[in-house]
Amino acid sequence: MGLVHYPVYNKNRERIASAVTTFDLHDLSRTARTYGVKRLYLITPLEDQQALADRVIRHWTEGYGAKYNPTRKEAMELIRVRGSIEDCVKEMTEEEGEPPVLFTTDAAEKMPARLSYEEAVGMVGADRLILLLFGTAWGLGEEVFERAHYFLDPIRTDTDYNHLSVRSAAAIVLDRLAGRTPGGQ
Amino acid sequence: MGLVHYPVYNKNRERIASAVTTFDLHDLSRTARTYGVKRLYLITPLEDQQALADRVIRHWTEGYGAKYNPTRKEAMELIRVRGSIEDCVKEMTEEEGEPPVLFTTDAAEKMPARLSYEEAVGMVGADRLILLLFGTAWGLGEEVFERAHYFLDPIRTDTDYNHLSVRSAAAIVLDRLAGRTPGGQ
Repeated sequence: MGLVHYPVYNKNRERIASAVTTFDLHDLSRTARTYGVKRLYLITPLEDQQALADRVIRHWTEGYGAKYNPTRKEAMELIRVRGSIEDCVKEMTEEEGEPPVLFTTDAAEKMPARLSYEEAVGMVGADRLILLLFGTAWGLGEEVFERAHYFLDPIRTDTDYNHLSVRSAAAIVLDRLAGRTPGGQ
Repeated sequence: MGLVHYPVYNKNRERIASAVTTFDLHDLSRTARTYGVKRLYLITPLEDQQALADRVIRHWTEGYGAKYNPTRKEAMELIRVRGSIEDCVKEMTEEEGEPPVLFTTDAAEKMPARLSYEEAVGMVGADRLILLLFGTAWGLGEEVFERAHYFLDPIRTDTDYNHLSVRSAAAIVLDRLAGRTPGGQ
């Protein structure tokens, strides 16, 4: 799973590198750990933002936080800070011996290669190596959608409102992909 | 839907009133609005915490934030700050003409009157008036479980880890209860 801080858009549809939100590190790593995700990439090319993220992660994995809250440590240990999506793909390919299938998500409808949750669950069940990307700020840069292999259906509900935080959206997507244990819902 | 700051436990299983987290207001109200929840109660008896919450809500519903981000306004407008669960029940009963059915959730297994998500979806579909309570800190006080009519099954996954943030847990529970539109998953 990857949280993308670049390339994304700001409110005025300008390309930016967004700031790291420490709540994302806490919430997304706990969600990732709960659903058996192997790694959470935090993707930003900004060195000060990388340093900030590293400092938070170290506090919870090595510092006082690790003793104070061991379950937080277990979650935070899943995080790796990397400079680009390409770096993550390269690393996964080297370590796992195969390139990952890239999934993207978005609140809005996107281009071809759309994947239903049912199809996606099948790929997860078949143990495919997957990198599931989430955007920050006002959404992922277009080239990420072009680079991705599949685009996961937006979360649709009975309302016309879809402005979930990335923390909430990621929790819902992971639950849909990996949270229906046999026998349960 | 209600976010309970009292009565809850701290890490040492002492009864406390927990502090308001502004991220909860943002994330939970957006999730609530996305899934068609009518109201989000923030429940705390502490006056300084009520004032803090009111200040944040006003910023986004009346202040600069309302102009800057109208979708945030729409979400934040669902929040009401109240002093106790009883106050919420009383208010809902007066306004809706019937007392709400109380649902609670917890990461751990709890007592009788357990409800599967399938059964809960049926009650949501039958338009029952429901107050769905989430705890903060280290979980809801025991008397809340005794007071509640139903206890929703914990979120179970294939791992032994379940330490989701309340923001993530609430998103997952609402998606399970109200996010499967006919035809979609």
